[in-house]
Amino acid sequence: MKKINTSPISGMQELLPPSQAVFDSAKHSLAQIFKSHGFQHIETPVIDRTDILLAKAGGDTEKQIYKVVKTAETADDADQALRFDHTVPLARYVVEHENDLAFPFKVTQIGRNFRGERAQKGRFRELYQCDVDVIGRGNLPIAYDAEVIATLYHALTSAFDLPPVLMRISNRKILTGLLNALNLNNFATEIFGIIDHVEKVTPEVTRESLEELNIGSEDIVKITTFADIHGSKSEIEKKLQTLGIVDDPTFNEGVTELLEVLELLEQQGLKDHYIADMRIVRGLDYYTGTVFEYILPDYANIGSICGGGRYENLASNFTDQVLPGVGGSIGLTRLFYILGANNLIKETTEAPIDIAIIPLSHSEYNYAHQVANELREQGKSVDVIFTDKKLGDKFKYASKIAKQAIVIGEEEAKTKKYEVKDLF
Amino acid sequence: MKKINTSPISGMQELLPPSQAVFDSAKHSLAQIFKSHGFQHIETPVIDRTDILLAKAGGDTEKQIYKVVKTAETADDADQALRFDHTVPLARYVVEHENDLAFPFKVTQIGRNFRGERAQKGRFRELYQCDVDVIGRGNLPIAYDAEVIATLYHALTSAFDLPPVLMRISNRKILTGLLNALNLNNFATEIFGIIDHVEKVTPEVTRESLEELNIGSEDIVKITTFADIHGSKSEIEKKLQTLGIVDDPTFNEGVTELLEVLELLEQQGLKDHYIADMRIVRGLDYYTGTVFEYILPDYANIGSICGGGRYENLASNFTDQVLPGVGGSIGLTRLFYILGANNLIKETTEAPIDIAIIPLSHSEYNYAHQVANELREQGKSVDVIFTDKKLGDKFKYASKIAKQAIVIGEEEAKTKKYEVKDLF
Repeated sequence: MKKINTSPISGMQELLPPSQAVFDSAKHSLAQIFKSHGFQHIETPVIDRTDILLAKAGGDTEKQIYKVVKTAETADDADQALRFDHTVPLARYVVEHENDLAFPFKVTQIGRNFRGERAQKGRFRELYQCDVDVIGRGNLPIAYDAEVIATLYHALTSAFDLPPVLMRISNRKILTGLLNALNLNNFATEIFGIIDHVEKVTPEVTRESLEELNIGSEDIVKITTFADIHGSKSEIEKKLQTLGIVDDPTFNEGVTELLEVLELLEQQGLKDHYIADMRIVRGLDYYTGTVFEYILPDYANIGSICGGGRYENLASNFTDQVLPGVGGSIGLTRLFYILGANNLIKETTEAPIDIAIIPLSHSEYNYAHQVANELREQGKSVDVIFTDKKLGDKFKYASKIAKQAIVIGEEEAKTKKYEVKDLF
Repeated sequence: MKKINTSPISGMQELLPPSQAVFDSAKHSLAQIFKSHGFQHIETPVIDRTDILLAKAGGDTEKQIYKVVKTAETADDADQALRFDHTVPLARYVVEHENDLAFPFKVTQIGRNFRGERAQKGRFRELYQCDVDVIGRGNLPIAYDAEVIATLYHALTSAFDLPPVLMRISNRKILTGLLNALNLNNFATEIFGIIDHVEKVTPEVTRESLEELNIGSEDIVKITTFADIHGSKSEIEKKLQTLGIVDDPTFNEGVTELLEVLELLEQQGLKDHYIADMRIVRGLDYYTGTVFEYILPDYANIGSICGGGRYENLASNFTDQVLPGVGGSIGLTRLFYILGANNLIKETTEAPIDIAIIPLSHSEYNYAHQVANELREQGKSVDVIFTDKKLGDKFKYASKIAKQAIVIGEEEAKTKKYEVKDLF
C-alpha cells in the first residue's frame, strides 16, 4: 500500500536506467564533438539573481521563470530565480570573467534549464539544453557562423542515429535590407513575424496579413517572392536577382554573409545537407544576421530540432563592451523525447552492465573479486552478485542487469579458469 | 564601465574553463568507476514536491531547503522545492519505479543539490554530490557494504591524484549492543552524540559528558575504552575482547558484520587502506549498521572527504515495502575546492585545446578545415582561427587556448604538408 504520491512533478523527465544510459550516451557524444571542435565547457549556477536573469526578458520568460524563496540563512541575498536558458548566464559570465578569457571565446554549456510553463505532452519544465557559442570582443568574423552550424550538425548526427538532417540557413540582414529598400522598415517587426509564420498558413493568409499593413501589391509580391526563395547556393544567388536590383547596403551585406557561410559549409563537405531558406527568421528580435534551424525532412511533424544564429551584442545590459556572438542550441530533453515518440531511438532491450559474476558461495568471493577487477581493467562494467538466492534466481537477476555471466564455483576458484556465458 | 553586478551569488561555484576541465575530468572518472562496478546511473528532477522532500526531514534541512514559487502557468501544482540531497529523490524513484527495477538495485546519481545555508568559505549552496547506493528488497547481504566502500575508494583515488586515503569503518550495532548490555539504551542518542564528538574534545570533556547522564564510572570506562578501539582487523578483534563478554545479540551481529566487511575489503587488496574505528558514528539517526568515512591522514585539517553507511529502510515514508540499503556520497564541489586550497590539485597552466590551426588567409580555409577534421577523427580537440588579425596576434591567441599550432599558408595548402609547432 503506497502511502504517498511518488510520481515526479508533471513536465519533468525521469528515465529508467536503460533509457538514461541512451540519454547519457547522446549527451556525451554532443560534448565530445563540441570539445573536438575547440569549444570550452563551462557551467554557471542554476540559481542566479532575478535582476540578471530578467535584465532583457519579457513576455513568456517573465511569466515562466521559477523564483526561489530565500531561506532564513540566505535572507540577505538579492532576489533569486532559476535560469531559464544558457544565454543570459553566459552573458553574465563573459562580463564577469572577461579579463580571464581569450576572445573569440568558443564556449559550450550543457545542463538543465527551468521553465514553469503549462504542462503539456512533449514540453518540459526541466530541460537539458546543449549550447555552443562563439563570442567576439568588438568583432567576430562570419566564418564562426559556419563553424557553429557545422559543429552542431556533426554533434547531432554523431549523438543520434538520425534520418537525413537538413540545415535551413538564412541571414536576417537580407530581409531587413529589402524592407529598407522598400521603405517598409517601420513594419519590420510585423513583417518578420508574418514570414516566421509563412509555413504555418496558406499563401492567402500571408497576403492578407501583409495587406492589413497597407503594403502596396507590388511590394507584397516582392516580399512573398522573397519569402519563397530557398535552395542551393547557386539557386538562391539566381533567385535573389529576380527581386530586381535592391540597392541597400544591409541587403548586400546579408547576401554576402550568407553566401560566405554556405561556401564554408560546402568546403566542409556539408553541401548536400543544407539549403538557404528565406523563410527562416527564428523569432522576432534577438538575432541580427545569420539564422539557422535543422529539420528532419522525412519527419515534418517533428519541426525544428536545433536552431540558432548571430547576435550583435551578447551582454548590452551588463557592459558597454560590444560582444558580438553566434550560437546555437540543441534542446536535448525534448529531442530525446520526440525521437523516441517517432521510433527514431533504438529501443534498449540491452542490459546496462557488461558482465555479472555469480560466486556459488562465500568461499568464492575472493576469486570473484579478482576476476571482476581484471575485467574492469579491460574497461568492462562488472557486477558481483552477493545475494543468497538459488542459482536460478541469481541467473534471472543477472539476465536483467547484464549481457553476460560468469559462474564462479569451487572448480573455477581452484583452476583459475572460467567460462563467459551469454545471457538472453 | 560595468552597469550591473555580474558576480555569481555567494556560495556558488563558478570556474574558469581550465579549472572546469579539471573538475569535469574528475567527475567523469568517478562516473566511470561507478559504472565499471555495475552501478546504473539515474537522474531525478531538481524540483520536487515539498511534501516528498520534507517527508523525513527536520532541523537544518527544513531551514535550508529552497522553496520554489509557482508560476502563473504551474499554479495548480503541489508545493515545490529544490532537492537538497540524492537520497530522498532516490527513495521516491525506487518506490515509483519498483516494478521496473531489478533488486538489489545498484544505482549512482551525480548532480547538483541545493542548500540555502549561510554563506561561508568552503561551503556551497549548489553542490555536486556523487552518490552510490545499493537497495535491496526485503534484505540485502552485508557483502554490498564492502562493495560500496571499495567502489568509493577506487573512484576517489582514480578521480584525483591524492595522498594516502584512509577508510575508517565501524558498525553502529556494536555500540547499540554494548548499550543494551549495559542497560543504557535509554541514553543511546546522547551517547552516540558524545562519541561522534570524541575527537573534537579532550578525554575529560567526554568523561564529564557521560557523567552528566549519571552513568556509573565502571560503565564510563567501558564506553571510553570502546570508543578508543581502532586498528586493523586482528587488532580490533582482540581489543573488543578487552571489554569483557558482552552478551548481546546486536553487539555480536555488529562485530560479525564489521569483520565480514573488513575481510571482503582485504580480499580486494585494500587491507593497507582501512582501519576499523569505533569513533565513527556518522550522525545521529539515519544509519543502522555499517558506517564509514574517508580521510587524508596527512591533511588532518581537511576532515572527512567521503562517507556513508547502511540504512534499514530507504523509503519508509513512501511505502510499506522494506527497502534496506547501503550507500555513500562524495561531495565533489567541496572536495574540489578543498583539495585546491591545499594544493592537492595540479594547477592547470595547460591550454584546454590540443591544436589551433591558423590559416594565413581565406584561401586556406578549405585545407585548414580538412586538416582540422582529420585531426578531430584522431581524437584531438582542434580550433581553426578565423580572426583577421596579424599573425603575431593569432599566435598569442593560439597560445592561450591550445597546446600546439599549425600554420596553413599557400605552400601548405598546395603541398598538403604542414608542421605542428608546440606553443609555450
